[in-house]
Amino acid sequence: MIQTDILIIGAGPTGLFTVFEAGLLKLKTHIIDALPQPGGQCSEIYPKKPIYDIPAFPEILAGDLVNNLMEQIKPFQPGFTLGERAETLEKLGDGSFVVTTNKGTKHTAPVVVIAGGLGSFEPRKPPIANIADYEGHGVAYIIKDPEVYRNKKVVIAGGGDSALDWAIYLADVAAEVSLVHRRNEFRGALDSVEKASELAKLGKIKLFTEAQITELHGTDALNGVVVKHNDNKKEDTYLEVDNFIPLFGLSPKLGPIGNWGLEIEKNAIKVNNAKDYQTNIPGVFAIGDVNTYEGKLKLILSGFHEAAVMCQYAYQIINPNKRFVMKYTTVGGVEGFDGSKKEAKKEVIQSIA
Amino acid sequence: MIQTDILIIGAGPTGLFTVFEAGLLKLKTHIIDALPQPGGQCSEIYPKKPIYDIPAFPEILAGDLVNNLMEQIKPFQPGFTLGERAETLEKLGDGSFVVTTNKGTKHTAPVVVIAGGLGSFEPRKPPIANIADYEGHGVAYIIKDPEVYRNKKVVIAGGGDSALDWAIYLADVAAEVSLVHRRNEFRGALDSVEKASELAKLGKIKLFTEAQITELHGTDALNGVVVKHNDNKKEDTYLEVDNFIPLFGLSPKLGPIGNWGLEIEKNAIKVNNAKDYQTNIPGVFAIGDVNTYEGKLKLILSGFHEAAVMCQYAYQIINPNKRFVMKYTTVGGVEGFDGSKKEAKKEVIQSIA
Ligand SMILES: Cc1cc2nc3c(=O)[nH]c(=O)nc-3n(C[C@H](O)[C@H](O)[C@H](O)COP(=O)(O)OP(=O)(O)OC[C@H]3O[C@@H](n4cnc5c(N)ncnc54)[C@H](O)[C@@H]3O)c2cc1C
Ligand SMILES: Cc1cc2nc3c(=O)[nH]c(=O)nc-3n(C[C@H](O)[C@H](O)[C@H](O)COP(=O)(O)OP(=O)(O)OC[C@H]3O[C@@H](n4cnc5c(N)ncnc54)[C@H](O)[C@@H]3O)c2cc1C
Repeated sequence: MIQTDILIIGAGPTGLFTVFEAGLLKLKTHIIDALPQPGGQCSEIYPKKPIYDIPAFPEILAGDLVNNLMEQIKPFQPGFTLGERAETLEKLGDGSFVVTTNKGTKHTAPVVVIAGGLGSFEPRKPPIANIADYEGHGVAYIIKDPEVYRNKKVVIAGGGDSALDWAIYLADVAAEVSLVHRRNEFRGALDSVEKASELAKLGKIKLFTEAQITELHGTDALNGVVVKHNDNKKEDTYLEVDNFIPLFGLSPKLGPIGNWGLEIEKNAIKVNNAKDYQTNIPGVFAIGDVNTYEGKLKLILSGFHEAAVMCQYAYQIINPNKRFVMKYTTVGGVEGFDGSKKEAKKEVIQSIA
Repeated sequence: MIQTDILIIGAGPTGLFTVFEAGLLKLKTHIIDALPQPGGQCSEIYPKKPIYDIPAFPEILAGDLVNNLMEQIKPFQPGFTLGERAETLEKLGDGSFVVTTNKGTKHTAPVVVIAGGLGSFEPRKPPIANIADYEGHGVAYIIKDPEVYRNKKVVIAGGGDSALDWAIYLADVAAEVSLVHRRNEFRGALDSVEKASELAKLGKIKLFTEAQITELHGTDALNGVVVKHNDNKKEDTYLEVDNFIPLFGLSPKLGPIGNWGLEIEKNAIKVNNAKDYQTNIPGVFAIGDVNTYEGKLKLILSGFHEAAVMCQYAYQIINPNKRFVMKYTTVGGVEGFDGSKKEAKKEVIQSIA
């Protein structure tokens, strides 16, 4: 059982910054996210795109925002359960909570904060009858560790940035990379499209356009797929492959959180924004894109403020008899749980004669 | 009469970021501040100190935070009335407001937002009977333009960073710089103290410690001061000078805003934080350090969120019949009033065969 002070569901910018605000109050944190990497929408949907409305950054790439946040929270050593979806929430007799993931990992904490954004990102799957049988045996929807594909024969399906970028990346790693797309045109960043085009011409990516995978074969694990061409006159192609990776995008689903007894409105969780961003379940907070209230803006900068406010109230739940006196970081510095200490240079008091 | 959409009182980080959020909604802004430079507390009190809790900046100097904000808001060309204190607020028959400064400058707008922090920074003045007579005629409490002192004989009083830093700076500009301090020890950044010490030894700063200025002389303008030594046995020194600059710090005072009919609590303005950060006067908002509500945190990041939310409601007041559809900056880009346009690189849709 993983134990912490504040259990955070969602490693988007809001969840990450919560680690920092909690850390300033000497509270430990642990984050669960369904995705294999931190950063939420910023990492999953638009890591290479600029954001212009992060205060004091005239421009910052979404991926750099996440990197900066990871750097900022490092002294507070958050725990991570990545690639697992928080599935159930249980309140124990002592008021604390147990959250269990779809893989059975259990976490306990006196305070739970849901920073789940638009929900847990779930892959869009192609409609192939027996695809579930091969999940974990050759079929994957997210690439966690590209090394898994070293010297393997891989077929990727999809026509967007992920399909292009992974095909490009794996061209150097896998024994063979095929890229299958329903249409003739790909949609992506110019340099990705150009690079993929170059590799296709060199034969390093085998290209099948106006085509799709319709059958999967293999007894214990995947060993072949059927490529069906849109042009019915063309005969199906059979490819011997070890891995099939359909990259049709991830769509967020509020998912299991919807069944936790929380007050839901417009697919988001109602909170008390006049005070602490607590939900109708005392001890459970909701911040960032996942919450709703009158005038809610689904902006990154709002998640940051909500995290700071929410942590003050979490402190009171966890330390009912203590009073925390807030000190500016400039004045008090930042003391990490790793023993690190950052602080402003001290002034000197001395004669100059 | 200066006319704008949103009149902002206070050029601290909150007021500055309001320019940006308003600009995204195509609203024009103008800022009034009592200080000669933008940045509020960050510029006035701790420009060279690091802040650690600005989201996605593991560390940033307060002065750099202000520079970054100035850069970010540039495309929206805010107007500035600096070095003037907003003195009166008047509501006209058509619902718009007129704000007049202590120097008589008049501003009008349908929406006023008070981002006044801890209040308007007012200099602490030494208790010299006739000092007011010389204000603007040799006596100043804030240095707006150091060139004013070129080839002048200047006496600075004070024992902190400003006194040290300006004495150092003016040593190269003025004909003569004297530095007078009540104590023997100065309090400041190590390098300032060392540099001042060096200049004192070279005779480039004339040092009077354990002493203070007690008399001012001159008919139309200042032409001399009396330095009285703590040690009564030492005789007073008479200095011929053109300028006397007491730098005893600025202390913020809510000041005239306190008389505008706003609901005040704990020396701050009550607002509706459940919704729009509006005050009890419709059309007048208060954001950042200057406002109060249950659980208020006087943090820079809270001012940013409050600015974003407040601007949405200001938009509705200014454009009662339009509906603004918020677009992410990443998606819609940033269109400046200066004709500039920032936007994410477009995706391409093309064949890679
Ligand atoms: C294309 C695009 C452009 C954008 N541009 C801007 C912009 O310019 N400015 C701006 O401010 N905002 C922008 N946004 C919005 C911004 O990305 C979001 O406001 C922000 O990501 C919200 O952060 P969050 O941490 O609240 O949630 P998210 O980033 O959505 O992260 C939530 C995380 O929680 C996880 N999660 C949810 N439920 C579970 C569960 N049950 N178990 C485990 N994990 C779970 C998800 O997998 C996800 O990783 C943009 C969004 C998009 C898509
Ligand atoms: C030493 C120190 C360290 C700090 N460290 C941190 C930190 O680590 N993190 C953090 O988040 N915060 C920190 N703060 C607090 C932070 O600086 C404030 O929260 C922030 O400056 C508030 O911004 P603001 O724009 O609301 O107000 P301010 O910065 O106070 O600016 C308000 C401006 O309004 C002007 N004004 C007011 N009334 C009038 C009037 N009637 N007419 C004209 N002008 C007027 C003032 O002159 C001033 O320039 C620190 C503060 C100090 C002093």
